[in-house]
Amino acid sequence: MELGCILAAVREELRREHLSAFIFPTADPHNSEHTADHWKGRQWVSGFNGSAGTAVVTLHSAALWTDSRYFIAAAEQLEGTEYQLMRMKIEGTPTIAEWLGRELADLPDKEVGIDGMCTTTSYVEALTAGLRKNGGITLRTNFDLLDRIWTGRPALPANPIVVQPLELTGEDVTSKFSRIRQALRRQHADGMLMAALDDVAWTLNLRGSDVHCCPVFLAYLLITTTGATLFVDDTKLTPEARQALAAADVRTAPYPAVREALGRYPEYNILADPDEVSYTLMKAIRAQEIVREPSPVPALKAVKTEAEQEGFRRAMLRDGVAMVRFLRWLKPAVEAGGQTELTVGRKLTELRAGQPLFRGLSFDTIAGYQAHGAIVHYEATADSAAVLRPEGLLLLDSGAHYQDGTTDITRTIALGPVTDEQRRIYTYVLKGHIKLQKLKFPDGASGTQLDAIARKDLWAEGLNFLHGTGHGVGSYLNVHEGPHQIRMEYRPAPLKAGMTVTDEPGIYIEGKFGVRIENLLLVQPYMETDFGRFLQFETLTLCPIDTAPIDTTLLTQKELQWLNDYHQLVFDRLSPLLDDADRAWLREATAPLKQ
Amino acid sequence: MELGCILAAVREELRREHLSAFIFPTADPHNSEHTADHWKGRQWVSGFNGSAGTAVVTLHSAALWTDSRYFIAAAEQLEGTEYQLMRMKIEGTPTIAEWLGRELADLPDKEVGIDGMCTTTSYVEALTAGLRKNGGITLRTNFDLLDRIWTGRPALPANPIVVQPLELTGEDVTSKFSRIRQALRRQHADGMLMAALDDVAWTLNLRGSDVHCCPVFLAYLLITTTGATLFVDDTKLTPEARQALAAADVRTAPYPAVREALGRYPEYNILADPDEVSYTLMKAIRAQEIVREPSPVPALKAVKTEAEQEGFRRAMLRDGVAMVRFLRWLKPAVEAGGQTELTVGRKLTELRAGQPLFRGLSFDTIAGYQAHGAIVHYEATADSAAVLRPEGLLLLDSGAHYQDGTTDITRTIALGPVTDEQRRIYTYVLKGHIKLQKLKFPDGASGTQLDAIARKDLWAEGLNFLHGTGHGVGSYLNVHEGPHQIRMEYRPAPLKAGMTVTDEPGIYIEGKFGVRIENLLLVQPYMETDFGRFLQFETLTLCPIDTAPIDTTLLTQKELQWLNDYHQLVFDRLSPLLDDADRAWLREATAPLKQ
Repeated sequence: MELGCILAAVREELRREHLSAFIFPTADPHNSEHTADHWKGRQWVSGFNGSAGTAVVTLHSAALWTDSRYFIAAAEQLEGTEYQLMRMKIEGTPTIAEWLGRELADLPDKEVGIDGMCTTTSYVEALTAGLRKNGGITLRTNFDLLDRIWTGRPALPANPIVVQPLELTGEDVTSKFSRIRQALRRQHADGMLMAALDDVAWTLNLRGSDVHCCPVFLAYLLITTTGATLFVDDTKLTPEARQALAAADVRTAPYPAVREALGRYPEYNILADPDEVSYTLMKAIRAQEIVREPSPVPALKAVKTEAEQEGFRRAMLRDGVAMVRFLRWLKPAVEAGGQTELTVGRKLTELRAGQPLFRGLSFDTIAGYQAHGAIVHYEATADSAAVLRPEGLLLLDSGAHYQDGTTDITRTIALGPVTDEQRRIYTYVLKGHIKLQKLKFPDGASGTQLDAIARKDLWAEGLNFLHGTGHGVGSYLNVHEGPHQIRMEYRPAPLKAGMTVTDEPGIYIEGKFGVRIENLLLVQPYMETDFGRFLQFETLTLCPIDTAPIDTTLLTQKELQWLNDYHQLVFDRLSPLLDDADRAWLREATAPLKQ
Repeated sequence: MELGCILAAVREELRREHLSAFIFPTADPHNSEHTADHWKGRQWVSGFNGSAGTAVVTLHSAALWTDSRYFIAAAEQLEGTEYQLMRMKIEGTPTIAEWLGRELADLPDKEVGIDGMCTTTSYVEALTAGLRKNGGITLRTNFDLLDRIWTGRPALPANPIVVQPLELTGEDVTSKFSRIRQALRRQHADGMLMAALDDVAWTLNLRGSDVHCCPVFLAYLLITTTGATLFVDDTKLTPEARQALAAADVRTAPYPAVREALGRYPEYNILADPDEVSYTLMKAIRAQEIVREPSPVPALKAVKTEAEQEGFRRAMLRDGVAMVRFLRWLKPAVEAGGQTELTVGRKLTELRAGQPLFRGLSFDTIAGYQAHGAIVHYEATADSAAVLRPEGLLLLDSGAHYQDGTTDITRTIALGPVTDEQRRIYTYVLKGHIKLQKLKFPDGASGTQLDAIARKDLWAEGLNFLHGTGHGVGSYLNVHEGPHQIRMEYRPAPLKAGMTVTDEPGIYIEGKFGVRIENLLLVQPYMETDFGRFLQFETLTLCPIDTAPIDTTLLTQKELQWLNDYHQLVFDRLSPLLDDADRAWLREATAPLKQ
């Protein structure tokens, strides 16, 4: 359908329902970061394909809110449409509630709709309060407008659900249930509704492929003091998965039955995380008390078992080999001509796919050459893909799922000569990247407290980046995993030994180029003194950092030493796995630098 | 009264009221950090004299919670009493609710009391929820137990209230009201109840002396869209203050009348900050709606006017002169013998009191020699005061109110030879102190984000400190001022140009010595780039940092350069105000260091 026709159809439904506007967030019933196509309604209704954004359509106007990663992409994609682009966290940008307050100011009826099944409780409650403040607008949550007008809406995914073996998870389902119930007792809860798909997959040692790049499957898990029910389309379960569930005493029920089941919940109280559970399901709960607290599961899942840690180390060897082969291939291929952002991405995927235990990409590869590198979540299309030339910088952010670990790596590569500005920015980003990896910090510190370490040298140059500095990565699970993060915004979850976290500062010069350098780290013990326990990072990622664009005079001795030590480690670990030509290339790429 | 008799009297009242326990926080009706003696009930009931702590007395037990600053002092003071010391934020320490849950587990009646007039709404609500969770304990807030048993309780203070002149505040009362009302409109509030004493003093350009070391006076200010009422004992108003209030159209009413006035509040809604307004007053409000949001006043007060900034700079010259005279006097005096922690504190006060516009100390001087320096908020008494010897470290944290600015400075001084450990710790603390002052950071960053910069080098050595790194300082107002702070705990308030903030990392080696180095800083613009506005610090404090205990090999070139530049600045600013002997001493004390 054309965008104009879609908006007309939305407005017809608005009039039918006596609504003045409808809000389409990027969301599914599980508060997933990436949703199955069935729930990509915001994209369908706006034409904007970024992974984050909220469209709002009134009877006479339309607007789309998105974050800094997508400012450039969204501006291009919304060009010439009715949609006004709203740049989030930029001074002067109204909130959705403020904007609707103004847009609906002259209307007598001020009712606005949103699909409460696809929106978290916290989101609906904050929005309700905001709309009430801005001109007394009422929010209705009781239907899915899209379902009435979305012709050709993709069906719910129905991919097989398989067992993740114990030798890779390191903890069986019974033990996980026991630890979850212990945590629930500490929160004075008898049971919980688990809606987050990666939490469900982790708890049950199962994996699926219902969501692009995420090895999860659509399901809810309802845990009580004595049992657990998985709400899932059980035709998707492989015999092994079915057997594993039975062995762990997990009952199954149809996916849509969760709502009714919440209405006859058998215990006194239930934990339902308002940041995870949809508004509609929260309202469906009938219990004496709802414990509205953070789910204990992300914090349990985030601390990797020894088996998971070892899996990551093995996966990094294979990923590193693929990266080395790719990097050795890249420059000559670019010099030979005809390579684009798309073709080099495909080449890298092909090299990874040749590695044992490869299970797919962990996210769509970002290959941004020169100006495209400044578009933080750029995804090349056949139309946009730039031809690579033997000069300037290629930003390449990519990763894969292997059955024993998930990878996420960014390298910015000089394809030939670079400008002084590129060299300077590259080196400052590298300084931030190194400073964070070298950091020692007290047990209990949160990522919010550590974030400045990666930014300090950039700030002194008047540089900054608006995205996070680091996120957890799943063990053959989602590439973005909480509860911890390293970022400017407040995330109270502490970093603990056994957690994975990325280190990925970047600087983006609009219209010119972007630089980001990313390794995956593992939190490890450092020392224990009278002042408590201290932690440090082990670097998991094994891949050379391009030394060509470094201005060594800007590095301190300690930073240079870190880089040389890291390159030695990369060479030592990967070289036994390489053929002679690749090994010779790696020896060159990891040769020590001097000032 | 003896402590045993006090506890017996408390328990008699508990039985009379059918309560199982009573909670005595350190608090007054204004959520003041320091209270008038009238409200020092927690001290009276426990014997512990630290500035922070909560006593809980049950029918058969007693406990006192306090924070890391007071662990050592409280342990000493509670030794041999019924009170069990509860070290807050240490693993294994129960919360008050958890402890009461256990203590009262076997009792049929589980009612606990607290004085709701002296406790913030947030505190009471969190405590109510916590007690309910821990065994279904009920909290009663409706009376002041102490008032029935505290013989000789100090009366409410009745000191004069004077005008702070416009040339020092830089903004008149009408303008302040106008900015407060603008802020209230942004929060959709018609009016507000101001309970914080320093906010009331700031708004009205008045000062008092009702609270030890705080130039404030007991009052509430009720602001509506059209008027303002000051609830105050109006016999305290000087004629000038009375005239100033009349000129700004501020009505007065008796101090206790605030409760009744809230019951007939004339507007639709009212902002009452639950972290500031007592539970009893919150419950007394009769309005269509209570806007429970942070008061806008601290953020307005924190950004100093040009006149206030200039006032700080002038006050620092006078404070610096007093400090230089003191430091020059100190070592020979210690060598001559007979000096104690108390006598050197008195000497410093005397030198400050000789300076123009001196209005008193901004807090009780902390002079901690060797092991006493490790007690973070140590206050020497005639019994405890150590005799100073020409060796080791004296930690001296002190400050004064001048009419044009408030000071807060810590120096750690080598009185003679120091150990290698002292030299190492001193230098690492200095590194953190310098790193924070040199920091450039984006406009909008909060102190939580910057805190790690001061700690990074300490963490790498397995060192840490549990107190905050920095706090705002008032303009002839409280020495601790929010809303911004630099600390590990989350404080969302951003640092803005014009704010004062201290820089005071420290390390405390129990039983041996403590090191803290503190300057007061002023946030200033740094640069504006495509990446936004960036900020930096101007150092306001003018006083040499003792170079004797520095191990220069541990400093980077940049750190050494900062120290030499700072010392040059101190010399340039102070030397014209000194006599020849003091100037010669200062030249020596500020001589550049080499590695």
